[in-house]
Amino acid sequence: MNHLAYDALTQAWTRQYRFSHLQAMAGWDRAAVMPPKGNAARAEAMAEMDALLHRLRTEPALAGLIETARDEPLDDLARANLREIERDWRAANALPEALVQAESLAGARCEHAWRSQRPANDWAGFLENFREVLRIAREVAARRADSTGLPPYDALMDRFEPGMTASEVDRLFGDLQSWLPALVHQVRDRQASAAAASPISAAAGPFPKAAQRALSLEVMGLLGFDFDAGRLDESTHPFSGGVPEDVRLTTRYGEADFVQSLMGTIHETGHARYEQNLPRERLGQPVAQARSMGIHESQSLSFEMQLALSRAFIGLIAPKLAAHFGAQPAFEPDALHRSLTRVAPGFIRVDADELTYPAHVILRYRIERGLIEGSVQAEDIPALWDEGMASLLGVDTRGNFRNGCLQDTHWASGLFGYFPCYTLGAMYAAQWFATIRRGTPDLDARISRGELAPVFDWLRENIWSQGSRWTTAELAVRASGETLNPLHFRRHLEARYLG
Amino acid sequence: MNHLAYDALTQAWTRQYRFSHLQAMAGWDRAAVMPPKGNAARAEAMAEMDALLHRLRTEPALAGLIETARDEPLDDLARANLREIERDWRAANALPEALVQAESLAGARCEHAWRSQRPANDWAGFLENFREVLRIAREVAARRADSTGLPPYDALMDRFEPGMTASEVDRLFGDLQSWLPALVHQVRDRQASAAAASPISAAAGPFPKAAQRALSLEVMGLLGFDFDAGRLDESTHPFSGGVPEDVRLTTRYGEADFVQSLMGTIHETGHARYEQNLPRERLGQPVAQARSMGIHESQSLSFEMQLALSRAFIGLIAPKLAAHFGAQPAFEPDALHRSLTRVAPGFIRVDADELTYPAHVILRYRIERGLIEGSVQAEDIPALWDEGMASLLGVDTRGNFRNGCLQDTHWASGLFGYFPCYTLGAMYAAQWFATIRRGTPDLDARISRGELAPVFDWLRENIWSQGSRWTTAELAVRASGETLNPLHFRRHLEARYLG
Repeated sequence: MNHLAYDALTQAWTRQYRFSHLQAMAGWDRAAVMPPKGNAARAEAMAEMDALLHRLRTEPALAGLIETARDEPLDDLARANLREIERDWRAANALPEALVQAESLAGARCEHAWRSQRPANDWAGFLENFREVLRIAREVAARRADSTGLPPYDALMDRFEPGMTASEVDRLFGDLQSWLPALVHQVRDRQASAAAASPISAAAGPFPKAAQRALSLEVMGLLGFDFDAGRLDESTHPFSGGVPEDVRLTTRYGEADFVQSLMGTIHETGHARYEQNLPRERLGQPVAQARSMGIHESQSLSFEMQLALSRAFIGLIAPKLAAHFGAQPAFEPDALHRSLTRVAPGFIRVDADELTYPAHVILRYRIERGLIEGSVQAEDIPALWDEGMASLLGVDTRGNFRNGCLQDTHWASGLFGYFPCYTLGAMYAAQWFATIRRGTPDLDARISRGELAPVFDWLRENIWSQGSRWTTAELAVRASGETLNPLHFRRHLEARYLG
Repeated sequence: MNHLAYDALTQAWTRQYRFSHLQAMAGWDRAAVMPPKGNAARAEAMAEMDALLHRLRTEPALAGLIETARDEPLDDLARANLREIERDWRAANALPEALVQAESLAGARCEHAWRSQRPANDWAGFLENFREVLRIAREVAARRADSTGLPPYDALMDRFEPGMTASEVDRLFGDLQSWLPALVHQVRDRQASAAAASPISAAAGPFPKAAQRALSLEVMGLLGFDFDAGRLDESTHPFSGGVPEDVRLTTRYGEADFVQSLMGTIHETGHARYEQNLPRERLGQPVAQARSMGIHESQSLSFEMQLALSRAFIGLIAPKLAAHFGAQPAFEPDALHRSLTRVAPGFIRVDADELTYPAHVILRYRIERGLIEGSVQAEDIPALWDEGMASLLGVDTRGNFRNGCLQDTHWASGLFGYFPCYTLGAMYAAQWFATIRRGTPDLDARISRGELAPVFDWLRENIWSQGSRWTTAELAVRASGETLNPLHFRRHLEARYLG
C-alpha cells in the first residue's frame, strides 16, 4: 500500500501551511497593531513571502506527484485532500509569477490610494488606478478560465466559492428578486405603522469604549469563543484573521453607538468558531481548512442574523447591555428587538439590515460580472450604480461616490467574484437554522434560557468538523438534506418580520 | 566597473532580511500577545522559517559569488558589507543543518522545562535536559572553531561580539577585579554611614499599572523613541524585538514597585533608538545592522546607567513621578537619587546595581568558559556558583538554585559566550559618556534643563548611524579615540559613588 507521492504532497502543503502562518500573523499585526512607519518593510516582507508561496505551489515536481498520487491507494479523506491539493495547485499554476506580482501590486496601490480617495469622494482619481486593476483582473480571469474550463467570471468566483457558477447565482438571486422587494415593502409598512402607534426608544449614549469591550468579551464567551486559542483586538476595518490554532478577531468601538461593535463581534465570533473547530487531526492540509467563503459567511451570519437577532437571544443579552451601560428603556428586550430588526434602505452595504442587504450584493454582482465579461467598462460604474440603487432600493447616490461605488475595498483590491458569497452565506445560514429547528423544536425556549448547545453542536458536527472533506454541494446535502435552497431564507425573513 | 557577484549577494541578503522580518514579528507576537494554544503551530512555523533561512545562507552558489565579489571594484561601504556578508555566510556554513536543528530543539526543550523548573528549584530536573544542550554547544563550538580558526569559546563569543577574544575579556575583567571589590566596600561603607545619619525614604505604593504605563510612555517620548516606528507592550520577560523599521519594546508592571518598569523601559529604549537610527540607505544589508551585542548593550546602558541614574536626569524625572503617582518625600530628587543608586550585593543579576553587576557576569563567564573548554562539567555548576557568589559578593546561594544558577535563561537556551557582552556594554557606555562629557563640559546642566540632544546627537553620529560599517575596535577608536578602556568605567563609578 504505497502512497509515497501523496505523502510528499502532504509534506509540501504542510510546509506552505507553516509559512502561511507567519504571513497570516504579519497580516493581523499590520491591521491591528503595526505603527505607520513599519508599513514599507512589512509590504516588502509579505510580498517576498507571497512570491515564495507561489513558487512552492508551482514547483515543477508537483505535477508528477499529483499524477502519481491519483493512482495510489488512498482512503476517502486522503482522496478528498488530494482533490483540494490539486485545486490549489491548479489555481496557482494558472497564473505566471509576473501576473501574480502585477495583480498584487496593482491591487495594493489602488487599495492604498482608495483609503484617502473614498473620504475625498474622488472617483476620477480612483478610476486611474482602477483601470489597471481591472485590466489585470480580466487577464487573470482569462487564464483561470483556460485552466479550469469555466467561463471567466465563474473562474474568478471559483477562488472563493468552488463549484458555484454564475448561472446558479442567477437562478438563486432571481428567486430572491421575485419576492424580496415586495417583502421589504410589506415589512416597512408594518414597521411604520407600529412605530406610529408606539415609537421605538433609541438607546442614549455615550457608550464608553471600556464597557463596549467588556460586553464584547462577555458575549464572545457566551458564544463559545476559546480565549486560549485567539484574541479580540481593535482595528479600523474589523476582520477575522490569524490561523485556526490562534484566531484573531478585531472590532471597532464608536462611543456614540454600541450596535456596530456588538453585532460586529458576534459576526466575527461566528467566523472564529468555524476556524477554532476545524478538524485537528489533518490540520495543515487543505482538507482540514474552511470549505468556502460562502460557507464561512454562513457561520458569521448564523451567529449574527439567525441567532443574535432572534427575540430569544435578544432577551438573553438585554440585561447584559443594561449591566454594562446602565439600564434604560431602549434595553428592554422588546424595544431592543424592535430597534435591532428595523428595516430601512440605506447607502452602505455593511450597515444594511438582512432584508435590504441582498440588493447591495445583487447590484455589485451585476456590475462586476459585466466588468469581467467586458460588457461594462470601469467608467460605466457610477451610472450603473446610481441606476441600480434607485431601482433596487429607491436610494439616490448621484455624485455621492464615497457612499456609493467607492464604499467597498473589494474592487480596489482586485477581488472580483467575492460579493455573491455574502448573500449565499445568508441563504446557507437560514438553511442551517431551518435544519436545527427541525431537530430542536423548542430551540427558542432553549436559547432564552442560555442553552446554545443545540446550535453549536449542530454546527460543529455538520459544518466545522467537516472542513473541506466534501464539495460545498455535498456538504449542504449531508448537513441539511438538500443543496442550497432560497426558500429557507424567505421563510426565515417572513417568520421574523411578518410573524 | 562590474560588481555583478556583489549585487547578487546583496539581493540574497535582502531576501533573507525580509523573511527575518516575518520571523521577528512572529517572535514578538509569541512573547507579547499570543494565546497559549497558539504555541505548537507557532513553534512549527518558526522552525520551518529557521530551516529556510539556514538553507538560504548555505546555498552552494554563494561560495563562488563571495570569491568573485572579493575581486570586484567596490566602494568602502560595499566592501564592509561584503565582509559582514562573508561573516554571516561562514557562521551558517560552519554548521550542518542537522546540528542547527538539534541545537534549536535541545535549547527549546531545556528552556521550556526551565520555566517551571526554576520556580520549583529543580536543579536535578534541569540537569537532565541541560547535559544535551551542553553536549551540542561543545560540538557547535568545535565546528565554529574549525571554521574561524578561533579557540572554541572565542568561536561562540564571536556570534555575539565579533573580534572579542577570551584573552581580551580576561584582561578587561582582570582590570575590573583589581579595583572593583575595594570600590564596592568603600561605597557600601559610605552609603551605610549616610543612611545612619539620614535614612532613605522608601517610596510607598501601590503604583497603579495605568500610571506606570503613562509614565513609561512619557519617559520614552523624552528619550526620543519614535512611536510611529515602534510600540511598547507588556510581557513576562521584557525585551526589545521587532525590526529596525518597527521596534517592539515590552515591559512588565508590578504594582508594588515602579522602578523595575521605569528603568526597564529606559533600558529598552536605548536598544530601540539604536535600531530606529541605524543607517536607512542600505537597510536590509548586514552593514546597516547593529554592530554587536556589546555595542547594543552599550546603548541600553548609556540610557539606563549613564543618563538615567545621573543626578541631573533624576532631577528631571522626579516631578513626573510625583505627577503620575502623587507626591511623596521619596520622589524628592535627592531622595530618589539616593534610592536609585543604592549599592547592595544580591542574588539576582538583572536586579543588580551597576557596581555589583560585573561580579555576576564574571562568575558566569568563568563557569561557561570552563563548560565549553571541558574543564567544567554540567554537574559542577552549583558548587562553582556557591563558591563564586560567596567570594565575589559574599552571598550564600547554597541549595537556592532558583535564585542561583537557575536564574538565567541563557544556558538553558544554549547561549554560551553572551554574558560578557553585558559588562563590555557597561564599559563601552562609560567610554561613550566620557567622550560626550569632553565635548560638552556643561552636560549635566543641560540634562537638568531637559536638553538631551548632546547625548542623542553624539550617539546617532558615532554609533547608531555607523551600523556595522567598522569592526568593533575601529568603531570605538573612531568614536572615542581608543579601543575599549576600562578606566572610563572606573572613573564613572568613582565620580558617581564617591564624588
